[in-house]
Amino acid sequence: MFSGAQVSLYPMSDDFVGIITGAIGALDPWRDRLRTQTDDLSTLMVGPPEILFPAMRDLFVAAARTGVHCTLHATVSRGCPGEPDDPICAPVTGLSRSAPLPERIEQARAEVAAAVPTGQAISAQFSLYPLGVGHHMDEIYGCIDFLKSSGCFAQSKNFCTKLRGDAGPVFETLSQAFTRFGAEAGHVALDVTLSANSPTRV
Amino acid sequence: MFSGAQVSLYPMSDDFVGIITGAIGALDPWRDRLRTQTDDLSTLMVGPPEILFPAMRDLFVAAARTGVHCTLHATVSRGCPGEPDDPICAPVTGLSRSAPLPERIEQARAEVAAAVPTGQAISAQFSLYPLGVGHHMDEIYGCIDFLKSSGCFAQSKNFCTKLRGDAGPVFETLSQAFTRFGAEAGHVALDVTLSANSPTRV
Repeated sequence: MFSGAQVSLYPMSDDFVGIITGAIGALDPWRDRLRTQTDDLSTLMVGPPEILFPAMRDLFVAAARTGVHCTLHATVSRGCPGEPDDPICAPVTGLSRSAPLPERIEQARAEVAAAVPTGQAISAQFSLYPLGVGHHMDEIYGCIDFLKSSGCFAQSKNFCTKLRGDAGPVFETLSQAFTRFGAEAGHVALDVTLSANSPTRV
Repeated sequence: MFSGAQVSLYPMSDDFVGIITGAIGALDPWRDRLRTQTDDLSTLMVGPPEILFPAMRDLFVAAARTGVHCTLHATVSRGCPGEPDDPICAPVTGLSRSAPLPERIEQARAEVAAAVPTGQAISAQFSLYPLGVGHHMDEIYGCIDFLKSSGCFAQSKNFCTKLRGDAGPVFETLSQAFTRFGAEAGHVALDVTLSANSPTRV
């Protein structure tokens, strides 16, 4: 299994380099479980599926706390058949997808309810792509049930779903959608855009 | 058929609002063929598959010409079975996917070679998601053949493909990948991130 994310952080400020380099320290607690590689477009983070969103949360909240309008885009993937198995990607806790769907929806809701608030309000929109065969539509509909009752659901949009709330539960909602639904060995990709401190109020 | 894009433009500048509102005028020549709707995260553009990338090119190049480091992210989709048919999305030219694959690869290359340069160098990375059934792997491999010989191919990365060059041929390469390959009535999604004037040289 291979899992990881291509992550880009965008502060809308003349001091974007300073804000990015200032926020990167927030990844320090995750460094021993992530391998990273940066170019001009994004930073690749390779690691277990369950820590990708918590690590992105800490990075994004550190940048957003400057008060500057910041966005973060990530392409997140697990189980891509074109990628080699990598020991650093082994799930930390074991993803218990053997439980029946209604139980997993309950577990996902409970994790979001238990997420520690960060004090930072954010918006997010994401698309979940179950690729190849082996994904039951039941799993997708179950994930949608979870999202609508997560407490962070804002609206369905064309091509994506919008979330809103404190960064703690919003990132936990994304993490649960990514890790707890879909075929265990299947290929799942997720594209997400997050925004904080936007001058556009909707 | 329904086709469109959720588009977000990010200038890394204190004057991001001014740069965005200044660039939006570049969409004027496309207005009669696009329906748009904006919220705090993105602008939805609904229109024929062939004009989505040219319209995004004009928007992005207008912003990049300020010299500011700008990025653009778009989630582009055609044929999503959950979306209603919409007359504004009717292909302008008819997408001739009846031609044999090698011929289409040649046509796609010719379109990229004929693309008018803009004078603006950019980088891009994108992921192409053929969803549901009915997409032959031949189409995907044919698209990869085209990309590698497009003149804009930079490298394969985890989860995405990187392009580099003048905005004219780079956007044309994306447009050809999106419109000329994959099942004609199939659901294809494409996530792309574009960058100009980055201080990171790679």
